[in-house]
Amino acid sequence: MSHPGATPSDRHKVVIIGSGFGGLTAAKKLKRADVDVKLIAKTTHHLFQPLLYQVATGIISEGEIAPPTRLILRKQRNAQVLLGEVTHIDLEHQTVDSVLLGHTYRTPYDSLIVAAGAGQSYFGNDHFAEWAPGMKTIDDALELRGRILGAFEQAERSSDPVRRSKLLTFVVVGGGPTGVEMAGQIAELADDTLRGAFRHIDPTEAHVILVEGAGQLLPPMGPKLGKKAQNRLEKMGVEVQLNAMVTDVDRNGLVVKYQDGSTKRIEAACKVWSAGVSASPLGRDLAKQSGVELDRAGRVKVLPDLSIPGHPNVFVVGDMMAVDGVPGQAQGAIQGGKYAANIIKAELGGADPATREPFSYFDKGSMATVSKHSAVAKIGKLEFGGYIAWLAWLFLHLIYLVGFKTKIATLLSWATTFLARQRGQLTITEQQAFARTRLEQLEEIAAAVEGEKAAS
Amino acid sequence: MSHPGATPSDRHKVVIIGSGFGGLTAAKKLKRADVDVKLIAKTTHHLFQPLLYQVATGIISEGEIAPPTRLILRKQRNAQVLLGEVTHIDLEHQTVDSVLLGHTYRTPYDSLIVAAGAGQSYFGNDHFAEWAPGMKTIDDALELRGRILGAFEQAERSSDPVRRSKLLTFVVVGGGPTGVEMAGQIAELADDTLRGAFRHIDPTEAHVILVEGAGQLLPPMGPKLGKKAQNRLEKMGVEVQLNAMVTDVDRNGLVVKYQDGSTKRIEAACKVWSAGVSASPLGRDLAKQSGVELDRAGRVKVLPDLSIPGHPNVFVVGDMMAVDGVPGQAQGAIQGGKYAANIIKAELGGADPATREPFSYFDKGSMATVSKHSAVAKIGKLEFGGYIAWLAWLFLHLIYLVGFKTKIATLLSWATTFLARQRGQLTITEQQAFARTRLEQLEEIAAAVEGEKAAS
Repeated sequence: MSHPGATPSDRHKVVIIGSGFGGLTAAKKLKRADVDVKLIAKTTHHLFQPLLYQVATGIISEGEIAPPTRLILRKQRNAQVLLGEVTHIDLEHQTVDSVLLGHTYRTPYDSLIVAAGAGQSYFGNDHFAEWAPGMKTIDDALELRGRILGAFEQAERSSDPVRRSKLLTFVVVGGGPTGVEMAGQIAELADDTLRGAFRHIDPTEAHVILVEGAGQLLPPMGPKLGKKAQNRLEKMGVEVQLNAMVTDVDRNGLVVKYQDGSTKRIEAACKVWSAGVSASPLGRDLAKQSGVELDRAGRVKVLPDLSIPGHPNVFVVGDMMAVDGVPGQAQGAIQGGKYAANIIKAELGGADPATREPFSYFDKGSMATVSKHSAVAKIGKLEFGGYIAWLAWLFLHLIYLVGFKTKIATLLSWATTFLARQRGQLTITEQQAFARTRLEQLEEIAAAVEGEKAAS
Repeated sequence: MSHPGATPSDRHKVVIIGSGFGGLTAAKKLKRADVDVKLIAKTTHHLFQPLLYQVATGIISEGEIAPPTRLILRKQRNAQVLLGEVTHIDLEHQTVDSVLLGHTYRTPYDSLIVAAGAGQSYFGNDHFAEWAPGMKTIDDALELRGRILGAFEQAERSSDPVRRSKLLTFVVVGGGPTGVEMAGQIAELADDTLRGAFRHIDPTEAHVILVEGAGQLLPPMGPKLGKKAQNRLEKMGVEVQLNAMVTDVDRNGLVVKYQDGSTKRIEAACKVWSAGVSASPLGRDLAKQSGVELDRAGRVKVLPDLSIPGHPNVFVVGDMMAVDGVPGQAQGAIQGGKYAANIIKAELGGADPATREPFSYFDKGSMATVSKHSAVAKIGKLEFGGYIAWLAWLFLHLIYLVGFKTKIATLLSWATTFLARQRGQLTITEQQAFARTRLEQLEEIAAAVEGEKAAS
């Protein structure tokens, strides 16, 4: 193990794990502090996750929502960005181990901000992932773009009506904001963008089904907005199934169990999973060493100052932290990252750790788009939907997008999509166009390698 | 085998293989003809190949240069776009076989336009491809983007000066337009875009080497422009090696042989291959059945009317055709596609096949960009370089880009890159960030599959 990049320094060492909203905000807030910041992340970019569904459905390019973290922090001379997957935190020796391409690096810290986020959860059925990719990373979005568009391409060539119907059925599992947005966008893609582009199939006959376990869509937003979103989706032809649990997923479809105990199999080639999240396994690592508790989603039940018991210099923020009343959204992560950075700065300036103010979350509201010109929003007790909510959504998301060029480019992409009914990012790779399932690929590749070995 | 999508029709059936400049132009030219056009291609997009290097180096998104072919032809009701890899042409029975995901489809034709293009050639050393990807497809460009940016990321973490130097050495093999453009862009990426973004390495110390077998860069453009391009590249810090043949490529570098017989090994993690092309293997299929000759690059030595002996209804155009004086560039393909379509139209209107005018190529000139604000151009006997050539390049490429939105988006991307020294498309996937070589992946995957089999 080695520790490159470390110019010996007496400055307070802050290590941040993760380049999402929590980690990036914390790094930026430390800009003027007399510290050495090392931000270690397993992607090279900061992902603006709320717009990931637009990458998956061909509205914007990955570059617009995932600029390189090191370019965002380029001018912050006290911060270094390092690519690597953190595999272990040693609370006793205050070090973080990360791995990149077979090399393991050990990085010491004085203060640590753990903001490694959450992945998709399949509730113990990880083998579903093969057939129903999640919606958490750029990789996921590009994979789904390939699968969605690939299904239409295959249907155009198929002469078997049963297979064609399976290829033109899209099931989105999970009725949260991402699920609602994906269902709406796949429907728009089929009805508008692809209309008239095929000769053998009619893409507007594509069938989009949104399956949600609860009794309404967008549960945290309350029944009124849930119903609004549902009505809008149904108007677009999306079939919404509530109180419906997915019990099995395979190559050709999935099985749904309803409240009355009945089950139904849906034949569908393309499935999207946005039903649950599971916090980074680094939470378990922290729990083992500090005794801190985790909730069911693997989130760390932090102290009121977002630290963990016995380690006031270790903060957990963002999707990894479990704090009552804080949703797993950008705002919670941003505020958590800011809070941790401010504590570090204050205490370097002489503040007493015993007098930390507890973290308090300010709810700026939440929103979800359903289709172009239609969204639902909840700000405090105010609930509204439709065009006004959509304009608010547009405005807020543009403001939060990182960088000037990105804003103009994204506005242009949206104008094209919303006004001209075109999408500028429908490109899929050759590998995707001819993709079989990963398992089939694995088997084929394994056979090839065996063959090579035998031949050599 | 089946033949879906075929509504029985008495109309003349034109099958076009390939969605590049040749195939797409032919399809469009047949818009008002009383024919059924089926365009079969192995990508879903039309690729504007001259700008592929900008995708590889993060200036533009893949969507900007690779719009779906079926959307370009959406309103042309007599044309159907089909995804599939053509595996066989049966000249006797006038059918084309194509494969998509294990299904084989047979499509009959009355007229056939073969425009399947060319791939990268490694001159019999196909195993080089593993370590030095070509620059022919969107897959190639995204792969190279990942390798180029990934090399900087790895170097930032490496404490070994030898490994760091290897990671920061980039070798481009082949001094044609693509090689010149790639070398220039990697240098600009390192010197401008990434400047100041690292703490442990200085990206401006990256070493870019351009290796060309001939005695000058851009051989077809003549010594004057070749020297101009070379001077400009050298000013940017690119090392140009002429009369240099690559004799071996492996994971860690490559071996170059010079005119005097001496050889030298260059340690370099990231290699780009743009040294040669090899026409689609469908040429061999045609040769076997018709006796038509192929040239060394596998191109079909077509008759003066671009057809093959004994099959006046089968045309070969674009990078697959060997016609004296026609370079393997967009213009040759566009003019070939147009010519073939016009013959089909004329003869459907009663023209006599015996009176076909031979194909004649109109040379509109050629150009290559070296860096921002600098290009070289040759139009007829006129040769010029520098800023004026660059403006001409900018203007021409914007005109040829397909679609209004794409033009504005691309202009915006270029403005950002050329004026603000930023690149909007530097995103790489997680898979790429942690990519080992494909061979390593294969071995790992094979082991995993073995493990799964053993466990089940």
